[in-house]
Amino acid sequence: MARTQGSHSEITGPRIREAALHLFAKHGFAAVSMRQIAGEVGVQVGALYNYTPDKQALLFSLLEGHMIDLLEAWRSLDTPQSPEARLEAFVRFHIAFHLDRPEAVFISYMELRNLDPENFSRIERLRRDYEDALETILRDGVAKGVFALPDSKLTTLAVIAMLTGVTTWYRPGGRLGPDDVSRLYWDMVRKTVAA
Amino acid sequence: MARTQGSHSEITGPRIREAALHLFAKHGFAAVSMRQIAGEVGVQVGALYNYTPDKQALLFSLLEGHMIDLLEAWRSLDTPQSPEARLEAFVRFHIAFHLDRPEAVFISYMELRNLDPENFSRIERLRRDYEDALETILRDGVAKGVFALPDSKLTTLAVIAMLTGVTTWYRPGGRLGPDDVSRLYWDMVRKTVAA
Repeated sequence: MARTQGSHSEITGPRIREAALHLFAKHGFAAVSMRQIAGEVGVQVGALYNYTPDKQALLFSLLEGHMIDLLEAWRSLDTPQSPEARLEAFVRFHIAFHLDRPEAVFISYMELRNLDPENFSRIERLRRDYEDALETILRDGVAKGVFALPDSKLTTLAVIAMLTGVTTWYRPGGRLGPDDVSRLYWDMVRKTVAA
Repeated sequence: MARTQGSHSEITGPRIREAALHLFAKHGFAAVSMRQIAGEVGVQVGALYNYTPDKQALLFSLLEGHMIDLLEAWRSLDTPQSPEARLEAFVRFHIAFHLDRPEAVFISYMELRNLDPENFSRIERLRRDYEDALETILRDGVAKGVFALPDSKLTTLAVIAMLTGVTTWYRPGGRLGPDDVSRLYWDMVRKTVAA
């Protein structure tokens, strides 16, 4: 069977990722078969193996892709100089980025347990890089005397959990729009770290 | 086959719940069969159906049980009068309760999507009761002028997300003991809501 492998992969790659993300988020990684993913994309299961060696590699690629997108998006932001302004930028960025990708956020927390140990370590490292971005802002604010924290690592984890929590209750068209939410969360974070 | 139904249920009920909780947390609800749960308990699958009509009822019972335990434990606490002291008691209670039950906490967030609509509504109502317990403290503190919040509902959700987040990173024997963690989180929450 002759195939134009390159263009075939280009077309189906994003569709495979999208289908896998959706099915993993809906049913859980362990309950989804490669056959189901192929069915959702509308290809034979063999076509999936042209794209990814196995389901584990596909899960890892989704979780890694999510973290790399997150880190790149944050690093490409033209963030201001002062710790307060940088922290406000981080709060608004984190909420907007996560509200845009509820399924990726969900599987990134839920399916960590299904990663092979080596893959888990690689995701952990990327998560730590992102946490470090926030902790650097917090430490800088402490050094400049504008923030006061009992423990910068714990505040980092607390702020990220607080902000990511928005994805569990936020619904478009609800009482608060995304800008209201960001403003109100920034108000809380500002007080949490205030000197 | 003669059976002492009552005592049989008494013995296997808790073991079925424990096995189901563990397997759902490890593999996800959709990936676990009643047969697997029976195997983990060491009974025939028929014995499971003496205890629960189906897997959905078992999931609901685990999630409902978790929320009822949480509400009862909070309501049975002899909480102090002042809003600050009650909020501190809530923070310490919430962290201790959740650190004790990582699997129940995990499936209570993750498996909401697998509840039937009616079961989902019942869990949502229990969650709202618990959120209301915190929001009542916050509103009371605002009325007494000791707290200042831009939005008491949002602060409620933010504080609960922040506190529950401890379960995602806390490991016994790590840098901080449970008392340190509670003290440091109380420090952050106190500042977040301060007038």
